Amino acid sequence: MNQDQRRADLHQFLNPRAVAVIGASEDTTKFGGRVLEYLLKFGFPGTVIPINVRAKTLRGLTAYPSVKAAAQPIDVAIMAVPGEHALDAVRECAEAGAKGCILITAGFAEMGEEGARRQAAIVAVAREHGMRLLGPNCLGYVNPLASTAMSSTLSLSEITELPRGAVGLVSQSGALMGSMIAVGEDMGVGFSVCVSVGNQSDLDLADFVEYLADDANTHVICIYMEGLLSPARFLAAADRARANGKPVLMAKSGRTESGARAVQSHTASMAGSHAALQAACDAHGIVLMEDTIDMLSAAHCLTRFGRLEAEGLALFSGSGGGAALLVDALSEHDLRIADLSTATKEQLTDFLPPTHRHVPIDTGAMYQRVGQQEYRDAIRKVFRIGMADPGVGAGLVLLTTQPDMDDVARATVEAGAACGKPLLFVNTGGKAGEKARHVTKQAKYPSFDHPISAVRVLETLVRERALRTRPGPAALQPLALDAVLAELPRGLLNENETKRLLAAAGIRVTRERLARDAGDAARVAEEIGFPVVLKAQARALSHKSDAGGVVLGLASADDVRTAFDAIARRVREHAGLELEGCLVQEMVKADVEVIVGSRWDPQFGAMVLVGIGGTMVELLKDVRLTTAPIDAPAAAELLRSLKLAPLFAGYRGKPPVDIDALAATIALISQFAANLGAQLLEFDANPLLVAGDRAIVADARAVLAERS
Amino acid sequence: MNQDQRRADLHQFLNPRAVAVIGASEDTTKFGGRVLEYLLKFGFPGTVIPINVRAKTLRGLTAYPSVKAAAQPIDVAIMAVPGEHALDAVRECAEAGAKGCILITAGFAEMGEEGARRQAAIVAVAREHGMRLLGPNCLGYVNPLASTAMSSTLSLSEITELPRGAVGLVSQSGALMGSMIAVGEDMGVGFSVCVSVGNQSDLDLADFVEYLADDANTHVICIYMEGLLSPARFLAAADRARANGKPVLMAKSGRTESGARAVQSHTASMAGSHAALQAACDAHGIVLMEDTIDMLSAAHCLTRFGRLEAEGLALFSGSGGGAALLVDALSEHDLRIADLSTATKEQLTDFLPPTHRHVPIDTGAMYQRVGQQEYRDAIRKVFRIGMADPGVGAGLVLLTTQPDMDDVARATVEAGAACGKPLLFVNTGGKAGEKARHVTKQAKYPSFDHPISAVRVLETLVRERALRTRPGPAALQPLALDAVLAELPRGLLNENETKRLLAAAGIRVTRERLARDAGDAARVAEEIGFPVVLKAQARALSHKSDAGGVVLGLASADDVRTAFDAIARRVREHAGLELEGCLVQEMVKADVEVIVGSRWDPQFGAMVLVGIGGTMVELLKDVRLTTAPIDAPAAAELLRSLKLAPLFAGYRGKPPVDIDALAATIALISQFAANLGAQLLEFDANPLLVAGDRAIVADARAVLAERS
Repeated sequence: MNQDQRRADLHQFLNPRAVAVIGASEDTTKFGGRVLEYLLKFGFPGTVIPINVRAKTLRGLTAYPSVKAAAQPIDVAIMAVPGEHALDAVRECAEAGAKGCILITAGFAEMGEEGARRQAAIVAVAREHGMRLLGPNCLGYVNPLASTAMSSTLSLSEITELPRGAVGLVSQSGALMGSMIAVGEDMGVGFSVCVSVGNQSDLDLADFVEYLADDANTHVICIYMEGLLSPARFLAAADRARANGKPVLMAKSGRTESGARAVQSHTASMAGSHAALQAACDAHGIVLMEDTIDMLSAAHCLTRFGRLEAEGLALFSGSGGGAALLVDALSEHDLRIADLSTATKEQLTDFLPPTHRHVPIDTGAMYQRVGQQEYRDAIRKVFRIGMADPGVGAGLVLLTTQPDMDDVARATVEAGAACGKPLLFVNTGGKAGEKARHVTKQAKYPSFDHPISAVRVLETLVRERALRTRPGPAALQPLALDAVLAELPRGLLNENETKRLLAAAGIRVTRERLARDAGDAARVAEEIGFPVVLKAQARALSHKSDAGGVVLGLASADDVRTAFDAIARRVREHAGLELEGCLVQEMVKADVEVIVGSRWDPQFGAMVLVGIGGTMVELLKDVRLTTAPIDAPAAAELLRSLKLAPLFAGYRGKPPVDIDALAATIALISQFAANLGAQLLEFDANPLLVAGDRAIVADARAVLAERS
Repeated sequence: MNQDQRRADLHQFLNPRAVAVIGASEDTTKFGGRVLEYLLKFGFPGTVIPINVRAKTLRGLTAYPSVKAAAQPIDVAIMAVPGEHALDAVRECAEAGAKGCILITAGFAEMGEEGARRQAAIVAVAREHGMRLLGPNCLGYVNPLASTAMSSTLSLSEITELPRGAVGLVSQSGALMGSMIAVGEDMGVGFSVCVSVGNQSDLDLADFVEYLADDANTHVICIYMEGLLSPARFLAAADRARANGKPVLMAKSGRTESGARAVQSHTASMAGSHAALQAACDAHGIVLMEDTIDMLSAAHCLTRFGRLEAEGLALFSGSGGGAALLVDALSEHDLRIADLSTATKEQLTDFLPPTHRHVPIDTGAMYQRVGQQEYRDAIRKVFRIGMADPGVGAGLVLLTTQPDMDDVARATVEAGAACGKPLLFVNTGGKAGEKARHVTKQAKYPSFDHPISAVRVLETLVRERALRTRPGPAALQPLALDAVLAELPRGLLNENETKRLLAAAGIRVTRERLARDAGDAARVAEEIGFPVVLKAQARALSHKSDAGGVVLGLASADDVRTAFDAIARRVREHAGLELEGCLVQEMVKADVEVIVGSRWDPQFGAMVLVGIGGTMVELLKDVRLTTAPIDAPAAAELLRSLKLAPLFAGYRGKPPVDIDALAATIALISQFAANLGAQLLEFDANPLLVAGDRAIVADARAVLAERS
């Protein structure tokens, strides 16, 4: 199915003119009662067809015993028919010509094999009739802009109007979709579409993200995700959203091992490798979140104020203590307080003493300077002046308990509207802050009861900016690897084989040759030039060093001969193996040792891992993962983000290394991995030796997939 | 003043029978209007004496033009008299026999030298008359149990009853005290005392913590702190609270560099070294917090349920997705989900399928098993069964939008009361959760709108448990260092001098002797045994290695002689220095290198720092700081908490080292630092070489304070 067709299908699915509610009733404690109630309460503009085996009318509408009996065109049918009867019900809808069907019922693929089988049967019927299917194990969807609630979610029970707005929401959990609608409505967030995809038996998360990426009414996309069925389409959809200027935020569960276990028993999703997902999201500009409420708050700010243009943050507080705590929290979240420009400081002259013309802006000091009379006016001006500073990307007003609290709230709402930058309001006034709360509530203004919640949202906005402004994935550069590849075995490649493949890609490796005996080794060493390294070669020998199979710094032909024999003896004694020979290798001096690896991820393809070499690397986990390929600037950014990055600048007397030259090599390795694709299951260059502008692979191994 | 006297003073100060309000009025937009209003509104049981130069009566009370004119006994006077008039006003109160005085006005020490001078004059007058002083730059105090509000905080403006309870609150910020009272009242927290200490010109933070530690009405102590004036008294007070079974929570600003700057201009406090404070708090069981609202929430749980007895956490959720996100968040906060016991799982048989008898407990799956009829009853039973598990220390119920939300809330409140363990409620139901919100609000039950807020509180409770159950500071063991100390110079000690001091403490150092010439060096080496190390000695030579002043692995007398001369030449050429000689040192094989340092902190005394040695240590900041002295078990815990701790277990083929033996050496070094106290400004043993059960200081330096 092509993209236009998918879009048209989904548009019809989300904007039906005639809907059938299977199991409709007047009892709102029941699924079919709530769906019917919501369709009517929120003013669904099309035809509602209640299906109920007994009732003749329901809420004034003619009810029918079956879809067939209704004998009317149906765009979308919604049902919560129990597992064993679901197949018949779905088939009936499909045969009646329904274009889409929402299956709420749980107990399918997420409950094991039997459920998975029943689910597959239902999907087969739907596909046979060209009917799209949402669910099972979902809560349907809500399209506020079309006054359409095809959902039984209890979150709609206490509200009178669907919250309309520009946030498009796709959730793999029905309960969390419900909670997000409820919390969002409460905080003043409006939605273009909210959809719960459940088990994604037919329509999946990627389908809806793709749809929302092109939907003119949607400005920000929010996702709750447990596991992806079509990662490639999903990332393509995210790219499309990015191209259309829409931030994509995604809360993901299963980030940790225990979280992944919890996910598995929920929507039959495999969480996949979170590190790989994180890398893919970074590459495609998707902001990964830990929590759905933070996600909604950030979406609120993004739809209301747009994206951050500068990284610096402004703080306004009447409480010095509160401001100090916030400054600490911002620092601890790696957020940066804005340095006000000289021009801004000048504009603050009338309002603040010279010592106080900086962020955090102390409105208490302002109060003391301008007096109670001028305070209301001054606070408006100070908010506007501070937020207008070009270095300020977003701001935060902290309210503790202070004079004229509602007026501080009003001034914030006005300044937020005027500056066009996110200006968050934090209200820690308890009952004394109630009037201020009323002000922000009325204005549907982003207001927080907890300072740390606001800090987390600022962190998200700054992160969105950082991901947006960093380079995207690089284009694949074809490398001529086929000839060498044809000569190599499958499975684990030894050092020399791996290096041949690397060399074919233009990646610099140590000069070396395999020598069969001691005499041969000495001759090779003469050719390469001293000093050299000898390394034992034997296919079954996995840890050369442990078996005494590596000798460094051999300075003469005699040394080489002696070392060859010693290695052969040790490998025989310790590993019980006969040498195939020794690799004679140039000895390269390094100022920094780097490890670069790649893995084939079944979801996200070739992934490249970069870290500083040495025995402690594994313990420190100071490594970065990225999707492949990347270009040199992106590789350099990766290197600079390592905790041990100061080593590149020359540490403790060592000379600095050329980080750009190193980055170019890493970019080339990422192209190497991307070119080989699924053929290259694993690869490690360890170490990649770096000195000055030279980066040379000194040891490497790879695992090739068997020929299919 | 002794402790009993201080306690009696503070008791009177916080429980006055007669109070004077200087500047009283009927205008509640003014300081004196609010104080008067609050005294009356909250039913102050004693005598209120309004002082106003013009009014004859105020709110039905006789007003006087001055304290003197009132001619009545005064326990405590409260005033917000502007800076230049404050001295006279304070003197008048003191001369009228007031026992205490609260000075609200800002603009003293926190505003520079002039303010500091005026503050000192006021304190002098108060001390002269034996009158205690709170402030200036404070917001007074509130004693709910005595129906006494000696404060102008706006947080009391919208409430009708002072929130009585068991949380004692001391805040260095008036605005934050106000905010904490307001937010606390709103969340159902009750207070025994709330006091704002401002500039701490007389009564300080330690005074009140000491008071609350012994106050029978206070069960949990909460502190907002910017800078300590009397660290020793403060820590002693915390120890007293600990001995009395009271948790001490403390939000501290100035944790980061930018936060410390913000603090300095607020209450004239120097933030001090945060790392040292953190170490001191760890040692004395004080839970450091980042935020005041989290602190109140944790205090709420602690007063309501008591402390955590087990580390494991239970989760109950109707939403699988919400539970999965929570499981991730708990993992990411290093919190542990409880493993339910077999007995608990058996009790859950009727309610959950076998696959679901684990945490997170899925009440959705329960609903499907027991049906709507039994649900209400079942949820109560399941909450109780889960919480009763001995491995469960605390629990969390997550409400998204689900059936019978208010009943889930009621069941939580009941189960929380029954189990006597913290059971937190998270309500993400928006308007649909309003009824449930009403249930928890009525019950003053800990309920959160944001799951992460609840996770942060659980983290605090777990941390409180960990600090409580870990060993406290060790007792000082006197070491005989004076004889060696008398022979040493002051200032920077060289390696050999430092080692003599260490040896006097019984700390093992490398065998070594200073040799004046090459022949001498060879003789010493013969005595010590080969191989040896030579190290250049010259007082002005700070980086021996960089100047080529260290040669390792000398295996013969000849080698030693040659090396001695080469070192002398290099030191002359590179550093322009003449050798005093070379230290000839036994060469010790190490499996792990450790660094141990100590610093004299002006606030918290001797601090000991421990980390893994090697060039990367500085970059990785994988070090731990502690107050000295500590005992061996505490040192072992410190070592095990290092990221690189796996190195001790034998890493990559190296043999394991005896962590307890190493810990004993570190404990001894901490005794060494504590014995020398302020005499030892700095000390580093780098490296401390560890092999098997031997730990030997191979190099060291120290800085001794000048003799005073």
